[in-house]
Amino acid sequence: MEEWLILLDKTHALPLYEQIYMQMKRDITEQRVPVGKRLPSKRKLSEFLAVSQTTIELAYGQLTAEGYITAVPRSGYYVQDIEELAYTEPAAYTETTRPAPLKAEIDFSPGMVDPESFPFSRWRKVAKDVIDEQDAHLLQLGDPHGDLELRTEIATYLYHSRGVRCTPEQLIVGSGTEQLIPLIIRILGEDAVYAVEDPGYPLAHHVFDHNRRSAVAIPVDEEGLDTDALQRSQATVAYVTPSHQFPTGTVLSAARRAALLNWSAARPEHIIIEDDYDGEFRYAGRPIPALQGMDRGDNVIYLSTFSKSLMPSLRIAYMVLPKPLLERYRGAFIHYASTVPRLDQHMLARFMKEGQFSRHLNRMRKLYRKKLQLLMEQLTPYAPAVSCSGDGAGMHIIITVQDGRSETTLAEAALQAGVRVYGLDSYRSEPADGNPSFLLGFGGLTEGQIIEGVRKLMTAWGMKKRNSAE
Amino acid sequence: MEEWLILLDKTHALPLYEQIYMQMKRDITEQRVPVGKRLPSKRKLSEFLAVSQTTIELAYGQLTAEGYITAVPRSGYYVQDIEELAYTEPAAYTETTRPAPLKAEIDFSPGMVDPESFPFSRWRKVAKDVIDEQDAHLLQLGDPHGDLELRTEIATYLYHSRGVRCTPEQLIVGSGTEQLIPLIIRILGEDAVYAVEDPGYPLAHHVFDHNRRSAVAIPVDEEGLDTDALQRSQATVAYVTPSHQFPTGTVLSAARRAALLNWSAARPEHIIIEDDYDGEFRYAGRPIPALQGMDRGDNVIYLSTFSKSLMPSLRIAYMVLPKPLLERYRGAFIHYASTVPRLDQHMLARFMKEGQFSRHLNRMRKLYRKKLQLLMEQLTPYAPAVSCSGDGAGMHIIITVQDGRSETTLAEAALQAGVRVYGLDSYRSEPADGNPSFLLGFGGLTEGQIIEGVRKLMTAWGMKKRNSAE
Repeated sequence: MEEWLILLDKTHALPLYEQIYMQMKRDITEQRVPVGKRLPSKRKLSEFLAVSQTTIELAYGQLTAEGYITAVPRSGYYVQDIEELAYTEPAAYTETTRPAPLKAEIDFSPGMVDPESFPFSRWRKVAKDVIDEQDAHLLQLGDPHGDLELRTEIATYLYHSRGVRCTPEQLIVGSGTEQLIPLIIRILGEDAVYAVEDPGYPLAHHVFDHNRRSAVAIPVDEEGLDTDALQRSQATVAYVTPSHQFPTGTVLSAARRAALLNWSAARPEHIIIEDDYDGEFRYAGRPIPALQGMDRGDNVIYLSTFSKSLMPSLRIAYMVLPKPLLERYRGAFIHYASTVPRLDQHMLARFMKEGQFSRHLNRMRKLYRKKLQLLMEQLTPYAPAVSCSGDGAGMHIIITVQDGRSETTLAEAALQAGVRVYGLDSYRSEPADGNPSFLLGFGGLTEGQIIEGVRKLMTAWGMKKRNSAE
Repeated sequence: MEEWLILLDKTHALPLYEQIYMQMKRDITEQRVPVGKRLPSKRKLSEFLAVSQTTIELAYGQLTAEGYITAVPRSGYYVQDIEELAYTEPAAYTETTRPAPLKAEIDFSPGMVDPESFPFSRWRKVAKDVIDEQDAHLLQLGDPHGDLELRTEIATYLYHSRGVRCTPEQLIVGSGTEQLIPLIIRILGEDAVYAVEDPGYPLAHHVFDHNRRSAVAIPVDEEGLDTDALQRSQATVAYVTPSHQFPTGTVLSAARRAALLNWSAARPEHIIIEDDYDGEFRYAGRPIPALQGMDRGDNVIYLSTFSKSLMPSLRIAYMVLPKPLLERYRGAFIHYASTVPRLDQHMLARFMKEGQFSRHLNRMRKLYRKKLQLLMEQLTPYAPAVSCSGDGAGMHIIITVQDGRSETTLAEAALQAGVRVYGLDSYRSEPADGNPSFLLGFGGLTEGQIIEGVRKLMTAWGMKKRNSAE
């Protein structure tokens, strides 16, 4: 017994079996005891250490489970042959954080919603209703395509407000555009060539790139995607934002819509991915119906999100697959679980079912229209040096500045004055000639911030009001 | 005016401007009016139809926005040239649902948690606390790696209960193993060859396959992954479940742990992906520390989830990246947003900070141990015809049946009796020789269901208790 020194501290918080286990493990890993050595019997060790036999059993059990010792029936426990390994106790972790990016006082980010108008009390209410013992089954995994309750609500909503024709079966609920697009990419095969809008949505383009798919940039003009250029290209799949082109804000014209649908109908491999990211927010007249509803074949994959209509951080998006692709999808993703928390799915379904979502949208449409009008009013006096476009829908506009300075210089000058604007070049395949343009999102700003933001921006850029006395 | 017939129904629910818009759009798309035709002025049409001029403005505005007509300054509105397109009004959708798979009365699924013990009232409480006007900033997108509050809680938890050494910075929060593994795959490059356990976790293997990465199957025996076979293979990355091998339930022995860590240390491209999916649940002694904590280099990517410890439908998982890989990750995923809802992240962080998570784990550990003991007790009388293994941890065990019948025959017989068990062959690269084995999960079953399930299963298989009078 003398060659195995174990010191127990019975006043220590660590259980006795663990003290024994740790000392034995240390001795074995540091090779202080020879491989093959027989351990003292449980009874003997328990007597020697004056602890219960159960304590020794626990220690030996743990050592056996981790493979430091092995039990030989009717003989005893033996030290195992393990490779040399210095087990280092974990060092206490030290918390470090990344430096935050320079924060502008007023950020015209296109990805923000109005935080003050969110119906927190209603959302708390649906949370309270859904998080309930009676819904205990919602703890387990649900339908990999998203729960039927939510898909049914979305299908009804899409039919009534976006003219999208689909059954709940055709809907796949996911965590965002960047999570859904790779799934689309996989079912469209390796030979697909993607047409992307130029300028366009960089995240989607990154996803094509990351999945090593060919992508061709198709120019966007004041009618939206140049369908003639698409026609001439090698593209087989067109990724488009027809309701409110991102980032230019143009609405795809009826002629172009028809041309696009005819392009997709011309060849079986031609597919349109319609990203309707903010189709809910159109300020004049009724929303423009989705391409999907005008499609006579099975050529349009409709994609949308609750990021703009509810909150970006909810991470719920969805897509409508044409039936032939749905079959392919089921075959390819048979093992995948939905990435969207199930309680959240049911909270959203309930929120929609109770009519809260429509109510919220109607409120937000009015609010964003008001903010948009205010932003335009603030900018008007600076025309024609500063002109606006893309203001028919959504939560951002484009301003074009007649100025000798470059986009970078102007953006930098704005940032120095505490205002962040988003140069259009970063959304383009290559920098454009001509006057620099900027994307101005207004969703997340208060009216005061909009007024102040434009004032600071124009001062920073040295712009004068047309009829200003200055 | 006579050639443009517009009929208004002032009693109709549809707004007047919309009635005008729809009729004009239909006439244009159906080419009843010639391209280039000048529309009546707003004033004239408003007088003719006896509606306000604003109504006409809204209709013309919508038609202009959609590109059916175009405005020529100081002249008027003209019908645009659009390609022929039959706009079909969406048909009412019909709801159909997929047929549910044959549901067994008692399902020994390995992927279920105990639904009755979930602390619903506590979870409702954190939801109520987090969904609040004061947290309005949580509506906007947060840190793409997951919010710092949650990463800090996870890092502290991992250090104390799993021996994992990491800073919150090294943590990436995601929606599940199948969402995180593709991110790992991308940063490990195209030349990586993946070693997967055989039998192993099919979902991970599908992810390697879907991302077109080479994978080699390495056998698992009673000590876990065969590290000699790994050594001989071409693999550069080993995907392993050391704490409780899935599905066999073995605990990787200390010798194999050392061998595995030495393998990873031998060459810079050798990386271990340690999937610690149910490391919290070890029933004898203390939990076996994670490989990550024993790693002396930067060779282990630690991966885990709240699916077993809290609920599968929460869809929150995480990984700890070694610092060199963290840099690569930041470069590759600069444009990605987190897929995990931010309110959920803060609910979980608060739940952990308040100590509720530890409390829940302690309760569940006791509960699952009790269920496991009950399951083993029920099976013991059928030994040696039915033998158990993999019972040291987790929420499932393996039973091996000494029987001339095939795995398929036995699984089918069980299903006919209303019991679903999971044949081990479906987790293997190819069917094994020898006695069939089955995975029996017990997490989601009540004690009554466990007793009833075993009874039905043994009856269906014609097994007799050893000392039974029958």
